[in-house]
Amino acid sequence: MAVGLQAPATLLPVNGIKLGVASAGIRYRDRNDLVVIAVDEGTQAAAVFTRNAFCAAPVQLARRHLAITPPKFLLINAGNANAGTGEAGLAAAWETCHMLAGQTDSATEEILPFSTGVIGESLPVSHFPAGIASALDHLHLDAWLDAARAIMTTDTLPKGVSRQIEIEGRQVTLTAIAKGSGMICPDMATLLVFIATDAGVPRSLLQQSLDAAMAGSFNSITVDGDTSTNDACVLLATGQSGVEIDGAETSAYTLFSRALAEICTELAQTIIRDGEGATKFVTIEVSGARNGTEARRVAFTVAHSPLVKTALFASDPNWGRILAAVGRSEVQGLDVNRVDLDINDVRIVTGGAPDPGYTEARGNSALARESIIIHINLSMGEAMARVWTTDLSHEYVRINAEY
Amino acid sequence: MAVGLQAPATLLPVNGIKLGVASAGIRYRDRNDLVVIAVDEGTQAAAVFTRNAFCAAPVQLARRHLAITPPKFLLINAGNANAGTGEAGLAAAWETCHMLAGQTDSATEEILPFSTGVIGESLPVSHFPAGIASALDHLHLDAWLDAARAIMTTDTLPKGVSRQIEIEGRQVTLTAIAKGSGMICPDMATLLVFIATDAGVPRSLLQQSLDAAMAGSFNSITVDGDTSTNDACVLLATGQSGVEIDGAETSAYTLFSRALAEICTELAQTIIRDGEGATKFVTIEVSGARNGTEARRVAFTVAHSPLVKTALFASDPNWGRILAAVGRSEVQGLDVNRVDLDINDVRIVTGGAPDPGYTEARGNSALARESIIIHINLSMGEAMARVWTTDLSHEYVRINAEY
Repeated sequence: MAVGLQAPATLLPVNGIKLGVASAGIRYRDRNDLVVIAVDEGTQAAAVFTRNAFCAAPVQLARRHLAITPPKFLLINAGNANAGTGEAGLAAAWETCHMLAGQTDSATEEILPFSTGVIGESLPVSHFPAGIASALDHLHLDAWLDAARAIMTTDTLPKGVSRQIEIEGRQVTLTAIAKGSGMICPDMATLLVFIATDAGVPRSLLQQSLDAAMAGSFNSITVDGDTSTNDACVLLATGQSGVEIDGAETSAYTLFSRALAEICTELAQTIIRDGEGATKFVTIEVSGARNGTEARRVAFTVAHSPLVKTALFASDPNWGRILAAVGRSEVQGLDVNRVDLDINDVRIVTGGAPDPGYTEARGNSALARESIIIHINLSMGEAMARVWTTDLSHEYVRINAEY
Repeated sequence: MAVGLQAPATLLPVNGIKLGVASAGIRYRDRNDLVVIAVDEGTQAAAVFTRNAFCAAPVQLARRHLAITPPKFLLINAGNANAGTGEAGLAAAWETCHMLAGQTDSATEEILPFSTGVIGESLPVSHFPAGIASALDHLHLDAWLDAARAIMTTDTLPKGVSRQIEIEGRQVTLTAIAKGSGMICPDMATLLVFIATDAGVPRSLLQQSLDAAMAGSFNSITVDGDTSTNDACVLLATGQSGVEIDGAETSAYTLFSRALAEICTELAQTIIRDGEGATKFVTIEVSGARNGTEARRVAFTVAHSPLVKTALFASDPNWGRILAAVGRSEVQGLDVNRVDLDINDVRIVTGGAPDPGYTEARGNSALARESIIIHINLSMGEAMARVWTTDLSHEYVRINAEY
């Protein structure tokens, strides 16, 4: 049911990063479910993790390891989230890192673990040694698409984006893969994102560029408002292009950060296009807010409204539900008589009431499309926000009731 | 699909309050859709209204009229919410009040208007004169159940509760009716509630008792997290029992307030039992919070989670989704290793991990019931909260995609 989405045709290799996949039988049969990413020495790493207090064991451990030393390997499994598993889960995550460290003569702290899948089941640690050995045997520069497939859970398609940009006369590559059918879909979900570049970027600057790219991309999407226990996004910079970015005030940093933000946004949109049960790709733009926080709050309130989402599924221009959501989003001093609403190119509400030119036929034609832009102007200030979401379909209920 | 709910067998008359119903053809055919409630002189009125900034025209007008003078009549229609209708909607609401005032020799300000139904359509004012005349012709003390039926929209059953209590040796009656099954997260719902008593209560004390009753009843329920534009709850006290309640420190006030809170809670629960598409009646109890606000935030975060709600629909003990919702509810300093979870009488999680005694078979049997109590203990303090909600079913999507 992915909306306007296909599997990526090609994902470009990034010098300094090799990937290996294997079928470890953690939950699935007859498919790859384990990935090892090998990182050349000298690579800098930045990461952001879920803010959910019930964060999974691998998230806790990855955060801890990354604080100690740059990673030599990333170890990722699909099918089991190793979340809600307490101290035993933490021990299991550590054990899998220790296994990979043993097979590669590394320190356990040099391994970053990631898991995605069902919450609350014990991680089948015994499946890892053979899986790790097989993945290590097949490490390859050109295995990004294989890796994108191996980390899928309820995803219907693998997700990845590559970009090449020129910085200081040299070519720099960025490649990213992600999985997830929602900002969260806990049982199986969790958003995992792995991005690599051959630019050379010092760690603090790398983290700064990643944090900046998050706000307008992965932090601006929602399928169901549920924040995962396992969300993680890692950015690796190998430096092997020969391009060194050494300050936030440089044009090289600007070029790099813009390309990073672009691929994060494109990848975040693929998550929404493949959102559970999605039949629509919905962009919610709020303008005329007094500040960005207010604009985002209104946009997310509309994006999370089950009534708005079911109307979108029905292709029904039920704009009263949109206004009702705006009205409950706690914007102090909102003057409802100055609120305008457009859907795609159709003006629906002007000054809080139906626009004189509006007809239901025009509303229906706007809603009939697969891609819908809802624009709300609060007429209070200059700030704006944009978030992406899905509709709420029978298929969403089926997927999440049956799993 | 109402869960464990039947139409009320009897609703007791309240001296001083007469009700008349009529078929005005506002949206529905072959059913009553208009109610006039006539209030004897000397009756005190208190009310709470939606906090949605896009509050409907009748809400704005009722609030204004009530500030001027006690009401002589309430005028209620189903099928059209007169919300999102701008200045024209306000004029239409005023016109219907003016019509009723004209037919009863009252001032327009002595009429309180209420509307529920579709948002964004013009109120068909021309249908009101004949409907009002017919309702006035049939005013009766014993028409509460007819009125409860006439204000239904997507409700599948009429909702009402009566209580008789003895205060100072005299019998006092409280009767209340309500409607609402979608767009329910009242911040006071298209929830309309009308309560009457023959106790005599001064207005400020009446408002105090109503405000107190709201928190644990109508403000503790949610179907979909969408706060309506039309929510209103009115409490009328005729004084015709001869019982006068004259201070907040009296035992009479305590008895009255307790009975009021009880009928509000029972009526709020009927809203949930008849929630759109509901197949489960779900109570979410959060204990061990540091304060009530925190406890309510956790309870509502779980209650609003689409993933928790679809798991409840599936009768699936998917407790990982519940923990994930607790984890994103922004409880500062939450120690996940001290969180316990019980569903009905089955201990599921102890200290943030599966209880040693837990088996999926036990979880399945707890979830198989129609009535489900989810108890979450945060182990941080002494405060608790209780909210009621529904599951998220295919029927919910169907109703709201088709409405």
